[in-house]
Amino acid sequence: MVVAKKFIYVKPFVGMPTADNVQIVEENLPEIKEGEFLAEAVYLSVDPYMRAYSNSYTLGQQLEGGQVAKIIESKNPQYPVGKHVMAYFGWRTHSIYDGTQRVFLIPDETIPLSYYLGIVGMPGVTAYFGTFDILKPQSGETIVVTCAGGAVGSQVGQLGKIKGCNVVGIAGTDEKLDWLKKIGFDQVINYKKTPNLGEALKKAAPNGVDCYFDNVGGEMASTIIAQMNPDGRIAVCGAISAYNDIGEPVKATPIQRYMIFGRLKMEGFHVSSLLHRWPDAIKELLGYYKTGKLQTKETVTEGFENMLNGLIGILNGDNIGKAIIKV
Amino acid sequence: MVVAKKFIYVKPFVGMPTADNVQIVEENLPEIKEGEFLAEAVYLSVDPYMRAYSNSYTLGQQLEGGQVAKIIESKNPQYPVGKHVMAYFGWRTHSIYDGTQRVFLIPDETIPLSYYLGIVGMPGVTAYFGTFDILKPQSGETIVVTCAGGAVGSQVGQLGKIKGCNVVGIAGTDEKLDWLKKIGFDQVINYKKTPNLGEALKKAAPNGVDCYFDNVGGEMASTIIAQMNPDGRIAVCGAISAYNDIGEPVKATPIQRYMIFGRLKMEGFHVSSLLHRWPDAIKELLGYYKTGKLQTKETVTEGFENMLNGLIGILNGDNIGKAIIKV
Repeated sequence: MVVAKKFIYVKPFVGMPTADNVQIVEENLPEIKEGEFLAEAVYLSVDPYMRAYSNSYTLGQQLEGGQVAKIIESKNPQYPVGKHVMAYFGWRTHSIYDGTQRVFLIPDETIPLSYYLGIVGMPGVTAYFGTFDILKPQSGETIVVTCAGGAVGSQVGQLGKIKGCNVVGIAGTDEKLDWLKKIGFDQVINYKKTPNLGEALKKAAPNGVDCYFDNVGGEMASTIIAQMNPDGRIAVCGAISAYNDIGEPVKATPIQRYMIFGRLKMEGFHVSSLLHRWPDAIKELLGYYKTGKLQTKETVTEGFENMLNGLIGILNGDNIGKAIIKV
Repeated sequence: MVVAKKFIYVKPFVGMPTADNVQIVEENLPEIKEGEFLAEAVYLSVDPYMRAYSNSYTLGQQLEGGQVAKIIESKNPQYPVGKHVMAYFGWRTHSIYDGTQRVFLIPDETIPLSYYLGIVGMPGVTAYFGTFDILKPQSGETIVVTCAGGAVGSQVGQLGKIKGCNVVGIAGTDEKLDWLKKIGFDQVINYKKTPNLGEALKKAAPNGVDCYFDNVGGEMASTIIAQMNPDGRIAVCGAISAYNDIGEPVKATPIQRYMIFGRLKMEGFHVSSLLHRWPDAIKELLGYYKTGKLQTKETVTEGFENMLNGLIGILNGDNIGKAIIKV
């Protein structure tokens, strides 16, 4: 009999998550039935949305998330033993697919499998839809991205370069900035070392900002939106500045006057509402990766039991590129 | 020789405008040339944008704005004597059209001519484009509008009713609310008498908000956006809450988290960028008015010299419906 380990949400997150918010428990798995398969997690993902969406968690539930898992038993010919899937099984080591979970068979196992949690996984398609569907950057335009050192932000900038844009990345450590310059960002700003982000941005984007991919919200977003050109576009992907807010959110400069005078368009989105388009997007992203147009970096935490530390690391901005848990 | 009176901007607005910001001067007009016409203002418009855009004014310039004027001399057969135009001549009594100003010959003089500054003028097309192009309200949806007692807001609500929506208006006096109920608004909220706007809105819009026409910005906008349904739309037309801000704008709750979770779309616009579409929009609005689907109300200030008082009245929220200056 297979024993799965899984993380249970036992105490609501208040501010930054802590060890007592979760608990690891064991679960005996039954034999698989016709149409099912059993998979073992190889890599698990930690992502900022896990903190953002925690308001909708109920106590006692398993934490939600994606993983790359190896099929180790199968009674479903579409999912043969030995193949891998990217699946929303949650924070657990072993899982039975019963037809209800979101599962994608990995289309190409010649690249590192963990990339299906990053560059060709959820963060990858997030960058893809936000950039191509909402920002629609044109050659020569300036695109600004916050949390640029993370999995989504670093990819947004590279997609902007593919479209011939001037790309400005904002992140919180010089190590991240060095990497961003290596992968093609034109300008980078360390917001933690910049006394006046608005002034720094005027220097980095002297022709103004046409597209803004927002991962942070708050005052930083207001500062950037205040420098947007007429007919600018804003993709609102994340608001990490607010995820750990306790009580009332910290207030920020209202953006409405900039929206009016610049005729700006702003659109919030989440990639889980576009599941039907993931396969095509992933195919295109795989192509960019294989032709050297997309690069990635991973921050790997070893050990399933360290998943919460991996999540805390993201919320602290410790990761460069995609944060991965290796079982 | 014709002597025009005009308002000159002599001292920058700081906070609410005061009498010493402007000065009335006289100007001797030359004889008109071939292709020109001379017009005398009959009604002039005061609108919130006049305060909003004042940052771009230079000292000594004439104040900008629209008026309905009668053609009293003409050397242009397209503009015969006795006809009226809606024209952007600014705050002045007599004007010579020289081909450079924005001028529309009034298409139908059987309705009150001042309406071409309101229901079938700039505020009317503002409501039209914001509602039909950006909000795209569907029958049965809930649309919320702020500054509902003003020229634009009252019309947005009526356009919402034409589309079969549940319309909620927010304004600052009971007199405005009474009028809004008469012209078809389903629910009205006096924000000045409501200790908790969010709670009041939950009662007025128990199924959530699908469309929000924003004239105010600030915290009121954040409160409404926090109650929007998935795939909601926001048209950002004005930010009157911020126009008189001195120094740093008052901060408000960031809206990004609502944008993401609700997949909201928000778009700023100004009607002056859509001039080519005004004639068709005005034709459609005239039709609604003539078939009783659009009603209006005017707050009339007598006397050209009282224009600034009219503008101050708007910024104070004193007007019901369209604020008009009658020469």
